[in-house]
Amino acid sequence: MEILDELCEVHALRDHVPRQMTIGNLTIEGFSRAAVQTYWRIAELKLGFDVGAQPWAFMGLPRLFLSHTHMDHILSLPAYVARRRMMKMEPPIIYLPADAVGNVRNLMTAYSRLDYGGLPCELVGVVAGDEFEISRELMISVVPTFHSIPSVGYIAWERRKKLKEEYLSLDSNEIRNLALSGIEVSRELKIPKVAYLGDSTAKALDETPSMYDAEILIMEMSFVARRHQSDKIHKYGHIHLDDIVKRQKNFKNKAVIVSHFSARYADKEIEDTVLRRVPNMLDGRLILWF
Amino acid sequence: MEILDELCEVHALRDHVPRQMTIGNLTIEGFSRAAVQTYWRIAELKLGFDVGAQPWAFMGLPRLFLSHTHMDHILSLPAYVARRRMMKMEPPIIYLPADAVGNVRNLMTAYSRLDYGGLPCELVGVVAGDEFEISRELMISVVPTFHSIPSVGYIAWERRKKLKEEYLSLDSNEIRNLALSGIEVSRELKIPKVAYLGDSTAKALDETPSMYDAEILIMEMSFVARRHQSDKIHKYGHIHLDDIVKRQKNFKNKAVIVSHFSARYADKEIEDTVLRRVPNMLDGRLILWF
Repeated sequence: MEILDELCEVHALRDHVPRQMTIGNLTIEGFSRAAVQTYWRIAELKLGFDVGAQPWAFMGLPRLFLSHTHMDHILSLPAYVARRRMMKMEPPIIYLPADAVGNVRNLMTAYSRLDYGGLPCELVGVVAGDEFEISRELMISVVPTFHSIPSVGYIAWERRKKLKEEYLSLDSNEIRNLALSGIEVSRELKIPKVAYLGDSTAKALDETPSMYDAEILIMEMSFVARRHQSDKIHKYGHIHLDDIVKRQKNFKNKAVIVSHFSARYADKEIEDTVLRRVPNMLDGRLILWF
Repeated sequence: MEILDELCEVHALRDHVPRQMTIGNLTIEGFSRAAVQTYWRIAELKLGFDVGAQPWAFMGLPRLFLSHTHMDHILSLPAYVARRRMMKMEPPIIYLPADAVGNVRNLMTAYSRLDYGGLPCELVGVVAGDEFEISRELMISVVPTFHSIPSVGYIAWERRKKLKEEYLSLDSNEIRNLALSGIEVSRELKIPKVAYLGDSTAKALDETPSMYDAEILIMEMSFVARRHQSDKIHKYGHIHLDDIVKRQKNFKNKAVIVSHFSARYADKEIEDTVLRRVPNMLDGRLILWF
């Protein structure tokens, strides 16, 4: 939960059910509105980003990655842990900015006493630059972001084996024989599948160009209107539509999901403003996620 | 959040939007399902009971009354406080079982540090027997309940002035003159408008007969099926349909709202089972709240 200067023109907000969209071989589900709640799931990769709410169906995720600890991004963390315990699932692993681990532990202790039940989970403090091997096929890297409090972003990489160039002319028997003789015939290919920005200025995109290469980029765009000047927005660690307009040539992503709109805007105002500034919607790849 | 023995037959649950119903001059809004979330609002009385979720519209409530601190009843307390601060509303007053005040304070401190913002609120520890004058027209009494952890119920009383019997024959001038001369011509009438049970065995009803007299009674009935034996249920501090069947002559209420059904039951099973056991639905006054 974060306060900006004035929040007087707030539109009627409902707590939404998560929207769902299939992009390539991945299903993106989630909801994000600034100061309300933010949570995402990519079921095929068993990944969750942030936990402002905890739809019942999301409890199956074995791990969550938290971008920062503003309340609208972490409120339902204790419910997620408690529900998994109640359903006799494995304690989840929660990755979060290293600075926040102590206070999240305090939070869980207080909740555990109030609930008269344990909240078993593993808290893993992360800093930008960390990498985690989740499975043989999946790796997560932690990237720097620039918000008003300690924060990080995440990239989920698919790992594939690919035959080395020098062996491309060989037939499959020859390759097998080489491999059996102990020679490493393949190299690892890392494909950025999903990049998650969390809350940040656009500097996070520029500092980690892989964000622009990820098949799916999930990012915030808290502000769109001209009356909210982008230089002021940057001080609060957020992105303005202006920032995306300036960088529109950079996005190589198959889909750029923008969300986390300020509660000041009705959906219609966001849609109209974006269409005016980016009429081709990045060749249809720019997705406004309400 | 509470664990019973086995929760293996859980039906698909969605996080519901609150249902709404007008009864007399009061609008009841809320949702309650065991282990999921419980929250209620009576807008005309500006009262909220429990805060398992916090629909955006509910933040206008100046005070909340908490029955106990199982997670599904308090999860969104920090969001409620933070949203009111963000919207520049008065810090809310939160009434809760006295035993829980210290740990709720710890919880708020941890959240406040994680959110990098204050969580201004007044925590009022209550015990059964307490009474609070909310306004000239409204009084809240705290009643004993019987759950697996410290818990209370609440009754909201409307206070009305009524002319004393001995002055009924006088005309309005004579009454005014008496009143001006300092004589108390009226007595106070207290009408139980809404009783809220929270989570408890049915002993709570028997110990406080005003629960049966309240215009609207909001109560739990976590279990309905014969396969969940009521004596076992009682040990966990819950009500079974059996308990209501036994007491059906006691209910004088205009409406008896039963909710907080176990996640083991699909809505249809609850409906069918209750209709079989209480075919007249207490002359239509028994409301199954899904």
